[in-house]
Amino acid sequence: MITRRKMILSSAAALLTGGISTLLGRKQLEAVNTVTTPQPTTIMPPIHGLSYTPATTLNGSTLPWKWDNGVKVFHLIAEPVKREFAPGMIVNCWGYNGQTPGPTIEAVEGDRVRILVTNKLAEHTTIHWHGVLLPNGMDGVGGLNQPQIKPGETYVYEFTLRQHGTQMYHPHADEMVQMAMGMEGFFIIHPKEPEQPRIDRDFCIFLQEWFVEPGTSTPNPNIMTDFNLFTFNSRVFPGTAPLVVRLGDRVRIRVANLSMDSHPIHLHGYNFKITGTDGGRIPASGQWPETTVNVPPGTTRDIQFVANAPGDWALHCHKNHHVMNAMKHDVPNMIGVNQSGVERKIQNLLPDYMAMGESGMSGMAVMNMPLPKNTLPMMTGKGPFGPVEMGGMFTVLKVRDDITSYDDPGWYQQQEGTVAWRVIE
Amino acid sequence: MITRRKMILSSAAALLTGGISTLLGRKQLEAVNTVTTPQPTTIMPPIHGLSYTPATTLNGSTLPWKWDNGVKVFHLIAEPVKREFAPGMIVNCWGYNGQTPGPTIEAVEGDRVRILVTNKLAEHTTIHWHGVLLPNGMDGVGGLNQPQIKPGETYVYEFTLRQHGTQMYHPHADEMVQMAMGMEGFFIIHPKEPEQPRIDRDFCIFLQEWFVEPGTSTPNPNIMTDFNLFTFNSRVFPGTAPLVVRLGDRVRIRVANLSMDSHPIHLHGYNFKITGTDGGRIPASGQWPETTVNVPPGTTRDIQFVANAPGDWALHCHKNHHVMNAMKHDVPNMIGVNQSGVERKIQNLLPDYMAMGESGMSGMAVMNMPLPKNTLPMMTGKGPFGPVEMGGMFTVLKVRDDITSYDDPGWYQQQEGTVAWRVIE
Amino acid sequence: MITRRKMILSSAAALLTGGISTLLGRKQLEAVNTVTTPQPTTIMPPIHGLSYTPATTLNGSTLPWKWDNGVKVFHLIAEPVKREFAPGMIVNCWGYNGQTPGPTIEAVEGDRVRILVTNKLAEHTTIHWHGVLLPNGMDGVGGLNQPQIKPGETYVYEFTLRQHGTQMYHPHADEMVQMAMGMEGFFIIHPKEPEQPRIDRDFCIFLQEWFVEPGTSTPNPNIMTDFNLFTFNSRVFPGTAPLVVRLGDRVRIRVANLSMDSHPIHLHGYNFKITGTDGGRIPASGQWPETTVNVPPGTTRDIQFVANAPGDWALHCHKNHHVMNAMKHDVPNMIGVNQSGVERKIQNLLPDYMAMGESGMSGMAVMNMPLPKNTLPMMTGKGPFGPVEMGGMFTVLKVRDDITSYDDPGWYQQQEGTVAWRVIE
Repeated sequence: MITRRKMILSSAAALLTGGISTLLGRKQLEAVNTVTTPQPTTIMPPIHGLSYTPATTLNGSTLPWKWDNGVKVFHLIAEPVKREFAPGMIVNCWGYNGQTPGPTIEAVEGDRVRILVTNKLAEHTTIHWHGVLLPNGMDGVGGLNQPQIKPGETYVYEFTLRQHGTQMYHPHADEMVQMAMGMEGFFIIHPKEPEQPRIDRDFCIFLQEWFVEPGTSTPNPNIMTDFNLFTFNSRVFPGTAPLVVRLGDRVRIRVANLSMDSHPIHLHGYNFKITGTDGGRIPASGQWPETTVNVPPGTTRDIQFVANAPGDWALHCHKNHHVMNAMKHDVPNMIGVNQSGVERKIQNLLPDYMAMGESGMSGMAVMNMPLPKNTLPMMTGKGPFGPVEMGGMFTVLKVRDDITSYDDPGWYQQQEGTVAWRVIE
Repeated sequence: MITRRKMILSSAAALLTGGISTLLGRKQLEAVNTVTTPQPTTIMPPIHGLSYTPATTLNGSTLPWKWDNGVKVFHLIAEPVKREFAPGMIVNCWGYNGQTPGPTIEAVEGDRVRILVTNKLAEHTTIHWHGVLLPNGMDGVGGLNQPQIKPGETYVYEFTLRQHGTQMYHPHADEMVQMAMGMEGFFIIHPKEPEQPRIDRDFCIFLQEWFVEPGTSTPNPNIMTDFNLFTFNSRVFPGTAPLVVRLGDRVRIRVANLSMDSHPIHLHGYNFKITGTDGGRIPASGQWPETTVNVPPGTTRDIQFVANAPGDWALHCHKNHHVMNAMKHDVPNMIGVNQSGVERKIQNLLPDYMAMGESGMSGMAVMNMPLPKNTLPMMTGKGPFGPVEMGGMFTVLKVRDDITSYDDPGWYQQQEGTVAWRVIE
Repeated sequence: MITRRKMILSSAAALLTGGISTLLGRKQLEAVNTVTTPQPTTIMPPIHGLSYTPATTLNGSTLPWKWDNGVKVFHLIAEPVKREFAPGMIVNCWGYNGQTPGPTIEAVEGDRVRILVTNKLAEHTTIHWHGVLLPNGMDGVGGLNQPQIKPGETYVYEFTLRQHGTQMYHPHADEMVQMAMGMEGFFIIHPKEPEQPRIDRDFCIFLQEWFVEPGTSTPNPNIMTDFNLFTFNSRVFPGTAPLVVRLGDRVRIRVANLSMDSHPIHLHGYNFKITGTDGGRIPASGQWPETTVNVPPGTTRDIQFVANAPGDWALHCHKNHHVMNAMKHDVPNMIGVNQSGVERKIQNLLPDYMAMGESGMSGMAVMNMPLPKNTLPMMTGKGPFGPVEMGGMFTVLKVRDDITSYDDPGWYQQQEGTVAWRVIE
């Protein structure tokens, strides 16, 4: 067993970060946040012979580990992170190891894990292992189960995994602020007995909501209901990576939510089953068929399907304001108001003024309205047939029968017509 | 099979619109929106001998079709619609064929359907067939799966139905605006093999939220959280039709939601089963018993029960602000504030002024406070025992053992005492 | 059977209120609201030999009854209630029998119950028995099923219980106001055939949201989305009682919600099953495993687990603003803003001024910022390892292997180190 896991480690770590030596560094991981044009996701191909298919954290990564006498050792560093939500907008977040969401922890039922947590924030923190069965002292509620981890300190959590499923990690200290700033990550525990039939593609999407005043760069964690940015893995469309799968693949999507609202995530073209929660696998007799999985705050949901319908299928939150970006949502209502004449008069005073909204908002997707600094347009993205008019929690499931590798960057760059996540230049 | 379907067509179309000739016209359908007093719903009685029980869209209608070489041809016209939410309030919406929600599409698993969509809006649109399994090019996401349908154009969708259940149709272009203006409809696919036991009554209720500033007539689609009108099929109580059933009927209610919030729909007097979603039928082993079905945005829910308890049973959203109408919800809090003396003094200056709220709001249901133009009172409706003090997402399930026809208008007009949806004159 | 029930009555009533004579009085029950320091919950130990384990309403009580010719007679008095949300804050609510939530009604499937409702409010009211199968005239919708109960009147409801499960009672008159003021209670119907295996501990938690302007005492029922107090049984942490159980106990928690939002209630340390709704028991084949049960408005959810993990486990709403208290949530965003220098200058003008939020909000849990009168700090509570930084919908499940009685007040007072719900002096 140890030999096999070591192989996982070496191959996965090599793919992800270039080697074990980076376990305690963050140099290469930080690169994730500094891209200025959409990059192909770091996707690990299914590795035949392993006990599980590694998960793909879109626009993110998996946390490497090293062995220490039969214990898998991970290291999380809580710290401020500059995250590019989409080309043109960088947000001052907090996260782990240079990323928000933090890198995905993957382990196997039965593993003994040790997780070092170093606090590089200016205030104290802790980590709660949400949904993981563990001793009370490892549960991470600051003040209740442990002392807070002060700035500069490293705290050690260690426990044995007695279950499998889609769990999370997040702070349980100054919660309202720290989660709203982006501190969150997946904790995936694969089953000891390999799943039958095997999952070919296993994706992770973390949901979060933010309020960043247009023209500024720092989220306001005091906001409770009126958010203006809605993210998949702390990215907004068209900055969100697509889910690339082969025709016929058995696909799982794991969705986690630590925002203030439920998000109903809708997949086009498929009926899927809801197969798991942060409490574990739902028995087949109780699985619901769905096209939209509602993910309440503080939960995860696993969905599964066989990708038997080729094409580009939208995947998005079905609260329609959540597929819009950061402009103010309280603009005046101009539906049906004839603005001809008025526009010219105002332009004498304000040359940039644009009348809009008389017949709807779709004009916004193609116009060049001047935007505040570090602010994305509300509706954006270009597809093979024109503007997609989206933002926020939106991406595309791409099902193809002609791909040889999931992470061939050439594949979708060469097929310009099907690239839906490109920004308008 | 074709012969049987033709029979369905002719009988259903005759009942609904007076004949196939109206397929491309909208004259008679528009009449739905111009009633100024509550009218009996156009209810189709169960038609014995057909493969399914036609659905009843309360305060709405079913879309007629015609055959073309084995293909069922439907025609939807996207256009502005004036919708009476309840007597006394008409709203400038957008919809289909003069209606919001658009007319319900009903078809049978295995059918080949062709749907013509004509755009009579001032901006482009598309239609996404939510939950329907179909070829990628038919999926309707503007820019991603097809070019936008420009004003004046007609676009043709065609596909074969490979499933059954409660699906929806709605735009996937300028989504935030077009759905908030009322563009939405049911797409019901009946099973190829008739259901056993047969459903006697099959109702459709579409949920939507709106913000119409009191005194105005056009919804503001920029509003994200603070709505003030909450509708069943774009009507508010007491403008909502009741659900009339015979004692012992097997009843299904299909609820769809394209608003920004989940709506927990509560039925009094019954325990029902949640039997389906937009992803299909839930197996019996996984069906939950409920008295309140929570319907997230972007989903449908089917519920079923046998109507074995006679009487008038409330059916409503259980978010208590959602059974109120359009007055501002941010009036000052007067609970427990003694206003005696003050009221008379203010009336010297403002003769219409009414002190209210000192001991609660129930006085609002009977007073004659002057309202802004085109605005409904918050709490209204009269039942056999006095004011019902409701608005918004509220109606009544009427279970009777003495009815001979579901659509006998005389039945409930004659039983004044049980009429709960009448307005106070 | 009657003999056995009489025994339940006498023992339960004795434990709860000191005898049947208090059925129509409220003297002792009012005492619940006047405590100024956290008191041990009135917990009834499992009574072996009875047909069911009585429920424990944390920070509340169970409604006593008396027999009248084979009918269980209860008496609810609708009236204003002063409720201490936590030491330091008393709120002017409305409730039943001096309490909010009203006392829990417990009965057994097959019982004939008679419930007298006396209205001591200044406006009319009714009671709807949410989820209970009953004759139409007993359903309690004012105007539709009965005349309103005027101030000073007593109304009699009587029906036979034909089901078992977790139901509710609440007004169906001036609903938006009366529920927002705290009028709500559990109606638990135990099964006729005793449950196997037996439940050892059965808890009830009612969820509600309030807006009480800091410095004032009366909730504003007109608020629809921006609440600032979130309660378990009309208490906020650290005023919430803990759930005390023995290691190995079979535990049920019943959660009810009549607020405007869904609340995802997360239990640390356990995977539980969702076993019931207000519509009844979910069959085992359809029960979902969870660590967070999402409770929509107008529903109840039962969860069950065996308490096999010792320790102090947090139990809370996972919307992170809902574990905060009543201070304004719209304070300016100071994350990352260097306030040095500024603070001293402002203090020359305003001696109490404190710069805060530069590195997060955790400083708020330990500072002595002057608060408006009758207002709680946002983040409070002290645990064995320091400040817990919580408020609102938060409490602790305490699983111990060394307790002899669930209601031994000495047990947790003596173990200072594990007391998480104490206020900071």
